[in-house]
Amino acid sequence: MSTYTAPLKDMKFVLDELAGLAEVAKLPGYGEATPDTVDAILEEASKFASEILDPINYSGDQEGSIWKDGAVATPKGFKQAYQQYVAAGWGALPADAQWGGQGLPKVVATAVEEMLTSSNMSFSLCPLLTQGAIHAIELCGSEALKKTYLGKMVEGVWTGTMNLTEPQAGSDLALVRTKAVRASHPQLGDHYRISGQKIFITYGEHDLAENIVHLVLARTPEAPEGVKGISLFLVPKFLVRPDGTLGEERNSARCASIEHKLGIHASPTAVMVFEDAVGYLVGEENKGLAYMFVMMNAARFSVGLEGVSISERAFQRALAYAKERLQGKDLVEGAKTVPIIRHPDVRRMLMLMKSQTEAMRALAYVVAAAMDFSQKSSSSEERKRHQAFVDLMIPVVKGWSTETGIEIASLGVQVHGGMGFIEETGAAQHLRDARITTIYEGTTGIQAGDLVGRKIARDGGAAAKAWISAVNKLDSDLARSGNADIKALRARLSQGIQAVSDCVDFVVGTKDLRVTFAGAVPFLKLMGIVAGGWQMARAASVCEKRLSSREGDSSFHHAKIATARFYADHVLVQAPGLRNTVVSGAAGVMALTDEQFLAA
Amino acid sequence: MSTYTAPLKDMKFVLDELAGLAEVAKLPGYGEATPDTVDAILEEASKFASEILDPINYSGDQEGSIWKDGAVATPKGFKQAYQQYVAAGWGALPADAQWGGQGLPKVVATAVEEMLTSSNMSFSLCPLLTQGAIHAIELCGSEALKKTYLGKMVEGVWTGTMNLTEPQAGSDLALVRTKAVRASHPQLGDHYRISGQKIFITYGEHDLAENIVHLVLARTPEAPEGVKGISLFLVPKFLVRPDGTLGEERNSARCASIEHKLGIHASPTAVMVFEDAVGYLVGEENKGLAYMFVMMNAARFSVGLEGVSISERAFQRALAYAKERLQGKDLVEGAKTVPIIRHPDVRRMLMLMKSQTEAMRALAYVVAAAMDFSQKSSSSEERKRHQAFVDLMIPVVKGWSTETGIEIASLGVQVHGGMGFIEETGAAQHLRDARITTIYEGTTGIQAGDLVGRKIARDGGAAAKAWISAVNKLDSDLARSGNADIKALRARLSQGIQAVSDCVDFVVGTKDLRVTFAGAVPFLKLMGIVAGGWQMARAASVCEKRLSSREGDSSFHHAKIATARFYADHVLVQAPGLRNTVVSGAAGVMALTDEQFLAA
Repeated sequence: MSTYTAPLKDMKFVLDELAGLAEVAKLPGYGEATPDTVDAILEEASKFASEILDPINYSGDQEGSIWKDGAVATPKGFKQAYQQYVAAGWGALPADAQWGGQGLPKVVATAVEEMLTSSNMSFSLCPLLTQGAIHAIELCGSEALKKTYLGKMVEGVWTGTMNLTEPQAGSDLALVRTKAVRASHPQLGDHYRISGQKIFITYGEHDLAENIVHLVLARTPEAPEGVKGISLFLVPKFLVRPDGTLGEERNSARCASIEHKLGIHASPTAVMVFEDAVGYLVGEENKGLAYMFVMMNAARFSVGLEGVSISERAFQRALAYAKERLQGKDLVEGAKTVPIIRHPDVRRMLMLMKSQTEAMRALAYVVAAAMDFSQKSSSSEERKRHQAFVDLMIPVVKGWSTETGIEIASLGVQVHGGMGFIEETGAAQHLRDARITTIYEGTTGIQAGDLVGRKIARDGGAAAKAWISAVNKLDSDLARSGNADIKALRARLSQGIQAVSDCVDFVVGTKDLRVTFAGAVPFLKLMGIVAGGWQMARAASVCEKRLSSREGDSSFHHAKIATARFYADHVLVQAPGLRNTVVSGAAGVMALTDEQFLAA
Repeated sequence: MSTYTAPLKDMKFVLDELAGLAEVAKLPGYGEATPDTVDAILEEASKFASEILDPINYSGDQEGSIWKDGAVATPKGFKQAYQQYVAAGWGALPADAQWGGQGLPKVVATAVEEMLTSSNMSFSLCPLLTQGAIHAIELCGSEALKKTYLGKMVEGVWTGTMNLTEPQAGSDLALVRTKAVRASHPQLGDHYRISGQKIFITYGEHDLAENIVHLVLARTPEAPEGVKGISLFLVPKFLVRPDGTLGEERNSARCASIEHKLGIHASPTAVMVFEDAVGYLVGEENKGLAYMFVMMNAARFSVGLEGVSISERAFQRALAYAKERLQGKDLVEGAKTVPIIRHPDVRRMLMLMKSQTEAMRALAYVVAAAMDFSQKSSSSEERKRHQAFVDLMIPVVKGWSTETGIEIASLGVQVHGGMGFIEETGAAQHLRDARITTIYEGTTGIQAGDLVGRKIARDGGAAAKAWISAVNKLDSDLARSGNADIKALRARLSQGIQAVSDCVDFVVGTKDLRVTFAGAVPFLKLMGIVAGGWQMARAASVCEKRLSSREGDSSFHHAKIATARFYADHVLVQAPGLRNTVVSGAAGVMALTDEQFLAA
């Protein structure tokens, strides 16, 4: 059985050499992020992931969370693990010191989050949602709400949820029907009464924490139709007394059932029913959707990171099996039965897993660092520049890393052969878990629409072109290299960024929205592949320098260059084809009538 | 809830216009395959699939087969469905009249098989394995074995299995350890005693039929090592009396357990333990592997067809949901909430599902017809020519259709959004079921090795070049078209076949086996995509002719041309990239040491 080992060497390489941790640490408020502190945090997180979360991942999947009479019991070991999570202060890592947080940079928190998710995705969803809720309350909530809720949530003794979806309102939140009616009460003060049904509520009910803070989208009676009439409410499971302690009175927000899902079985996905539940307005009425997007952007980044995390875990499991399973003879050397890692096609699959995971990790961490710069840079121009990059890349990190994560988890099954199809092996769980990531927090189609519409067309391609320039700047670095692998990589990257540039021009120049959106997902995939190739090229270039000055771990540096080369010929190579699909693929998309689809 | 409707219109189009059913029907012995008879068979099969098998597909998945004390109970409804299957004579369709079969062409049986598998893949595996066993006994068994077993198996009252895999012997059958010792007995006559453990035995134990005929690979005591020392034995669950009736004595072949799998839950996957079980030699000693390949080739084709079948079913389910689910507004027309099929990205996904399913179906049926020609043509040259094409294409049909089938089933989940992740929706089952198809009967890596090694390198690319010529011949037809879609398709097909041609030259010219095998799977994918594109181009060309002469269903013909165009820009477009991976991708595959894979 494979056990999780955090890829600390690669994580540190990415943090130091690609994401610019040293520069991040110089930002105001991030002085604590010294190399020693960051190392210590990563080591501790790695232990927590391997020793506490990894051992309950498969058992949690098999057992699943169980609903009974409105209560949800999480699988064996989850409660204790969550207590240890709280005790160690992991939830407080990225939060503001004002609320008891440690105020560490996003890029450091990202590496920690990757480990927790790799070792146990179902577990990690509870903190993920809590972080999102903290973020929304911090940015949009009143001082009273902040004071009452944030301390407990940062500590982790209360958890948070996002209540968006209703049966008729999924991607289309304009259709939300849950109602919120103003009310007043001597003890409760000004509040609202919330009524309606929400579905797909991750950790909407559970036994890990003493309270659950639901953030709920609903409409007041006089609200305008559509997305402009949605407000955000905080609805606690147990009402909080004025002194901050928990009342015994249960709010009328109850879990009617949990879903029977393909994956993330340990994570309870609740159907929530609100019946005149007490809720408090977050921010102003009718601005709920904008607030929700605050949570959503962070959540989208985190879901993208889930793609990286599952890929890493699936890779480690497949690698362990490939080194141990004896089957077939070496193609050239013959004679004895060898571990299957000696077979070129198994190696190709492992390299696809490894190279793409590294590319996705590098891009995610670089975007996380950009979030830090966008928040803390002293220059407003720098903040803006970084924010534009972050906005451009969030749908790419989310869409590309999750789509690729599914492919990698599926390759993980394939490396195991027949054993991969047997649940006890564990490889199938990663595929089942990964399958939700391209759906929740906005499907890949939604991400791609965001990318081509809001992030590219709206500013006439300015942010995208700024990024293209940055990639083109790297070319002069690569041109100086005499290394054959880097030369090959350079050629593919240059074709790749040209493909992106063509597609940006195409999107900016096309007036027919249907044409633009017909190619949106292939475009997103192209962006991801090329952005990943950009990071692999940066990495290879750094490694070449380290090798020539004989600094550091030469085996690691050689491996990184070879991995980048593989990525170029097996992944980046798809860029021109994707460009052609974006530019000329719309014709076939809209041609059929609805009836012509089925020729039964 | 979506229900299965056989795509009879497309099936008949492919049979008539692409697979040449009229020519097949002229072959000796196939006189019964008149248009009316074939239509009637397809209609009946379609009803059986929709009315009997489809309704127990989801329930069968949820319930699963259950093992208890060595016996296996299949899910509710399976036994009755199997009785109806036998009563209707579906199992006898492709079998020889000598054994009670109807002797219909493979290409007709293929269309029927597609329907049974689309509606219930778990159910279909029992007949699939039985057909393979019939085939092996027919070709390699003694007259006595044929007489005793074939009639009952063709009728379907006895079923068949393939017992190849052992815990240490999966893809590498040289490692088989099961033993067979010669024995004699007054009642049983000359036989062998078989001892060993076999795993992953599909329908190795079940309650559908009164007897199970296991075909088992084992070694005699004096057999040479490796694959040259493997023999094939027939081991019945219940011994058969000399008069052909079943004895009450159970053979010592028992099912020790069944596996807990990702998918095909209704299909029991048995661990079989043989302890001095009575077995009969099939053919000669030490030739078992060659015989097994007879079964395997047919089984590989059938598994490829599973890719087509699941794709069709997943497509139908996604299409029904996309037409019914209201969410979001039309990008251009705005105003009211529309069914999601109006959104370009949903339509793109549906078109990916539809176009690839049609391309895969066309290729599979054309290969099935070639099997008929290879068996029954009066000219030996024709038989040889068709056999070479079949041999070339079997790994392509198997590998490409199954890999694509997984992608299509996954797209089916995606079209459903959050509902796709909920098991009750049914979309997830197709993904779980599809996931085995790239593994059993030889993984995609094994298929690709077969393609580049045995099917291309061995004959210096002769069979591949013959096929390339056939594709190039179509170009002059396409060149005559004034249709913009066909023109675009022509350009992509021409790039595609050039890519194949480059890769064939590369494989034939490369001496380093590791280099050839490193690109084998991308090459297989390329072959599949281009072979599918070839069929879509043939189809488009036929449809253009029908349109210009105003014959037949113009809506269907228009849709086919638009679908072919879509396929060109979204699928065939990947060919040059795949070529580059095959030709220059080996460098990165073998570069790392085993230790360099993990940088923990």
